[in-house]
Amino acid sequence: MHHTCDPALRSFVDVAPDSPFPIQNLPFGIFRPADGGDARVGTAIGDKVLDLGALEEEGFFQGPHLRGRKVFRRDALNELMALGRPAWVEARERISELLRSDHAELRDNVPLRGRVLLHHKDVRMQLPARIGDYTDFYSSREHATNVGIMFRGKENALMPNWLHLPVAYHGRASSVVVSGTPLHRPCGQTLPAEADAPVYGPSRLVDIELEMGFLVGGPATELGQRVPVEKAEQHIFGMVLVNDWSARDIQKWEYQPLGPFLAKNFGTSISPWVITLEALEPFRCEGPAQDEVQPLPYLRSSGARTWDIELEVGLKAARMAEYHTICRSNFRHLYWNVSQQLAHHTVTGCNIHPGDMMASGTISGPEKSSYGSLLELTWRGSEPIALPDGQERKFLQDGDSIVIQGFCRKGDHRIGFGEVEGTILPAI
Amino acid sequence: MHHTCDPALRSFVDVAPDSPFPIQNLPFGIFRPADGGDARVGTAIGDKVLDLGALEEEGFFQGPHLRGRKVFRRDALNELMALGRPAWVEARERISELLRSDHAELRDNVPLRGRVLLHHKDVRMQLPARIGDYTDFYSSREHATNVGIMFRGKENALMPNWLHLPVAYHGRASSVVVSGTPLHRPCGQTLPAEADAPVYGPSRLVDIELEMGFLVGGPATELGQRVPVEKAEQHIFGMVLVNDWSARDIQKWEYQPLGPFLAKNFGTSISPWVITLEALEPFRCEGPAQDEVQPLPYLRSSGARTWDIELEVGLKAARMAEYHTICRSNFRHLYWNVSQQLAHHTVTGCNIHPGDMMASGTISGPEKSSYGSLLELTWRGSEPIALPDGQERKFLQDGDSIVIQGFCRKGDHRIGFGEVEGTILPAI
Repeated sequence: MHHTCDPALRSFVDVAPDSPFPIQNLPFGIFRPADGGDARVGTAIGDKVLDLGALEEEGFFQGPHLRGRKVFRRDALNELMALGRPAWVEARERISELLRSDHAELRDNVPLRGRVLLHHKDVRMQLPARIGDYTDFYSSREHATNVGIMFRGKENALMPNWLHLPVAYHGRASSVVVSGTPLHRPCGQTLPAEADAPVYGPSRLVDIELEMGFLVGGPATELGQRVPVEKAEQHIFGMVLVNDWSARDIQKWEYQPLGPFLAKNFGTSISPWVITLEALEPFRCEGPAQDEVQPLPYLRSSGARTWDIELEVGLKAARMAEYHTICRSNFRHLYWNVSQQLAHHTVTGCNIHPGDMMASGTISGPEKSSYGSLLELTWRGSEPIALPDGQERKFLQDGDSIVIQGFCRKGDHRIGFGEVEGTILPAI
Repeated sequence: MHHTCDPALRSFVDVAPDSPFPIQNLPFGIFRPADGGDARVGTAIGDKVLDLGALEEEGFFQGPHLRGRKVFRRDALNELMALGRPAWVEARERISELLRSDHAELRDNVPLRGRVLLHHKDVRMQLPARIGDYTDFYSSREHATNVGIMFRGKENALMPNWLHLPVAYHGRASSVVVSGTPLHRPCGQTLPAEADAPVYGPSRLVDIELEMGFLVGGPATELGQRVPVEKAEQHIFGMVLVNDWSARDIQKWEYQPLGPFLAKNFGTSISPWVITLEALEPFRCEGPAQDEVQPLPYLRSSGARTWDIELEVGLKAARMAEYHTICRSNFRHLYWNVSQQLAHHTVTGCNIHPGDMMASGTISGPEKSSYGSLLELTWRGSEPIALPDGQERKFLQDGDSIVIQGFCRKGDHRIGFGEVEGTILPAI
């Protein structure tokens, strides 16, 4: 059998050269046919969606880990996630086989192809998982440093704990939404500059955060069970793009001493397709050196424990025709990798469930053009971004749309995350 | 029909005078028969548990809101919670009727009684709900002030935002456990005094937090929908006792700038019986005056928006025979009431689901004997608690058990929450 990442593999389904979804990708997502019908699991191939729920019902998954399981006719990936990596690999290999140009089984079954291969425009994507708990890390040194300089000055930019542990906080799971869900500008309490009492009203400093997140897979762990750093990837199903919308003025007033709360819980947008670690394998790389402060043994990881994922953020004001790129960054900039994040999260014995999401925190790179939030890009609003039509932006205006895209490339081999998009509607 | 809170109501089931569960209480919980069988919903009456799942199957719930619903043969209260208050009241009134001494239907049906009334010792209680999101407030002025004095001095004890909004943070839902679940002492990273680098190991400062929590009920709200303060109680199903175990040394090192994370996620214990707002109605009272700083209109509430609930914390070291009371407090001390908490939580449009839990934060009263954490009771360990057998406690030792009890009383009328109990096992 060919390796499912082999750049030479081709599908009988046409895939444009710039498509995020060649046969080497095979992400998992949840879709509903636009003309009705239940939600089910699919994979993306070019501009098509392959209905894995229908294939499962017709008996196409008979390997040892999937036979008799009902994991694809579901409205969330949690049941597939719970089965663990051997089942994910089995599914991937079988789907790869079914889509290959040199494999006749699906290729030559025209009626079946008609039923199970839908145009992307004929489906509606949903949230890929029931997210039990959502954790947000703060793992970009550049981001933490930038924010630190703005709020505490250059000397104390990084908190004393930052190089010793992956700082994180628990987020709100209920308000995680799928790409394309518009969000109303949140209302809340803020303390205007010079004011001696807070006021209520729409946030004036709505921001984005360019993040990625991983979704936990494998059987739920028991309370008290630690996930060692070297085994952490066994508990990771795949990754998505994340826009962690943030109301900076609400955050500034509320966050002492227990951290961000309402500033973040009005919505967190994620991309619909979960890219598996199998698909990301060819793009593994090492993260930043951690020799300035050596992590404690439970956090020490070696080798290529992260991935080279190019990231772009586009902004489109209501009257603009196209997105304007405001940031180019890369997942590999993150100081703390996902294995370290998961090892840290569970070091107290905190239990994890399939479908839990752990996001990276804002992914800022070293150059200004790679900063992952408007807060940093405009340096707290002091250096507005010029848009092509002459407008300026310090923070988001009503009607502004944001799109985050992510992709990996190596020569001709390119796989993508697709995008996470969202628009800020007026406050209600 | 008698009012279900009428102190004159009596059940044909014997109820001891000091039982937390007279017929006026009728809490909801999830149990599993100790000798096997599926989990289902029950209510507590004296030292018995009434199997509501069995009664539902036999057609005992035929009112307009419950007829045809299957909400009691479930392993969580979420389906009942989602129906909303009219259904909860209908269930309560019907259960009250069935248990009344002057109502023959169940009283005189001996075979049925044998099937549906179980001894509490013959059942195992489970978590009452699938908790989607868990939020922890910080609503006791006395607690926030005590902690503030210890960490920042008397002048800056309360943060500037504290009297303006109910400070809160998102907690970890996966590690909420039911009373009786032992917890291992968590391991993690701490910075010992005088040390210049953190160390890894078992927490040495494991603490308790005396809290209560409410469980959200009613249909899920939409993202963008605010719950107004005056309608907030419509979205509250009932209340439980909460012990928010805390590792103070881990917390101190990790919590800047994003708040508590691992210090709290190794376990949060709750009592198994959810006491409804209907049962609490006779014990309504006003909370502390909020005239020093008037809340913004969206947070302004008037009238008796809280409840007089007496709370006690007992500690039992491994070799002690009985619990020693270390704290007596009262829910009414809380500065911010549950309606204000929920209105604040949703002011940004954050959506809520039935089964979400929102805890109060540590409930400390004005006197030292009413402080709800060891941190405050021992003033950071500087004034150890003397136990009856001559031992001292600054923080919890391995083998220490903690029990929190809560009850309301007014003359002879007394209803209780039962208890939440937990033991700290050695680190693993």
